[in-house]
Amino acid sequence: MNREQAMLQQSLSKLDAHYQAMPPVSAMRLRIAGFDGQCLRLHAPLGCHVNDKGCAFGGSMSSLMTLAAWGVVTLRLEQAGLPADVFVADSEVRYLAPLFDDLQAEARLADDESWDVFCAGLRERGRARTTLEAWVSLPAGGMAAQSRARYVAIAKR
Amino acid sequence: MNREQAMLQQSLSKLDAHYQAMPPVSAMRLRIAGFDGQCLRLHAPLGCHVNDKGCAFGGSMSSLMTLAAWGVVTLRLEQAGLPADVFVADSEVRYLAPLFDDLQAEARLADDESWDVFCAGLRERGRARTTLEAWVSLPAGGMAAQSRARYVAIAKR
Repeated sequence: MNREQAMLQQSLSKLDAHYQAMPPVSAMRLRIAGFDGQCLRLHAPLGCHVNDKGCAFGGSMSSLMTLAAWGVVTLRLEQAGLPADVFVADSEVRYLAPLFDDLQAEARLADDESWDVFCAGLRERGRARTTLEAWVSLPAGGMAAQSRARYVAIAKR
Repeated sequence: MNREQAMLQQSLSKLDAHYQAMPPVSAMRLRIAGFDGQCLRLHAPLGCHVNDKGCAFGGSMSSLMTLAAWGVVTLRLEQAGLPADVFVADSEVRYLAPLFDDLQAEARLADDESWDVFCAGLRERGRARTTLEAWVSLPAGGMAAQSRARYVAIAKR
């Protein structure tokens, strides 16, 4: 493992500890399934998230997408050496198809946004806002749910 | 207790059993706080829903609003004698202020919608869609979060 990989591993362990320290998130039994520098993947077992129809509860899919997007922002700010609190400001979610399998949520920066602009804004004004896209995949391809949400970072003094 | 009150009590007990039968909802420790025929109120303790900043997790507020709105649709369809599965189709959520107290979510039909039109559509076509508004209150007044979401009902055969 080279130095970069070791630092990434450390950041993911810290993010996981952050997730598990929140009671509602700990109850979701989520785990970090991967991060390629742009896209964070989270996994949660269907058994914890099943609704009255035997498929994934919409609220669980929405929460997992929120946590994935929040996680990407948190990881990128840590990598940029910018300690900040990250909040979700608003979100739009579309529920597209029932999911009868474990939940896999992925999130990444929206195409029309830039990490450089976001980090520069945070450095200059102590506060910045950006938009993330997230989705929950269906096992056979396609999406069970899709979201677009804005996140605000406020620099820690 | 008159007959109408007894029927309402029975409907609320059935809705509560429905909530508690879903593992992710049971983990939220929610309870039905009231229903006046239009507006359903749900309560959940902050301790189960606290995030890394000591206030209510956005995903929990979003889930509670979804469950409150889903509950209103379910109650109204039961009162109309229309057995149906109810799904959330899409939602928009705005997170307005941090909440450092127990979660109180309320939901009701959006002003521009009608239960009569919704129920008539379900009777005629076996499927109908409507829009609900929901919010999480702040203890001193105002809202911690606000949502507008569409729900689909599909008649059970």
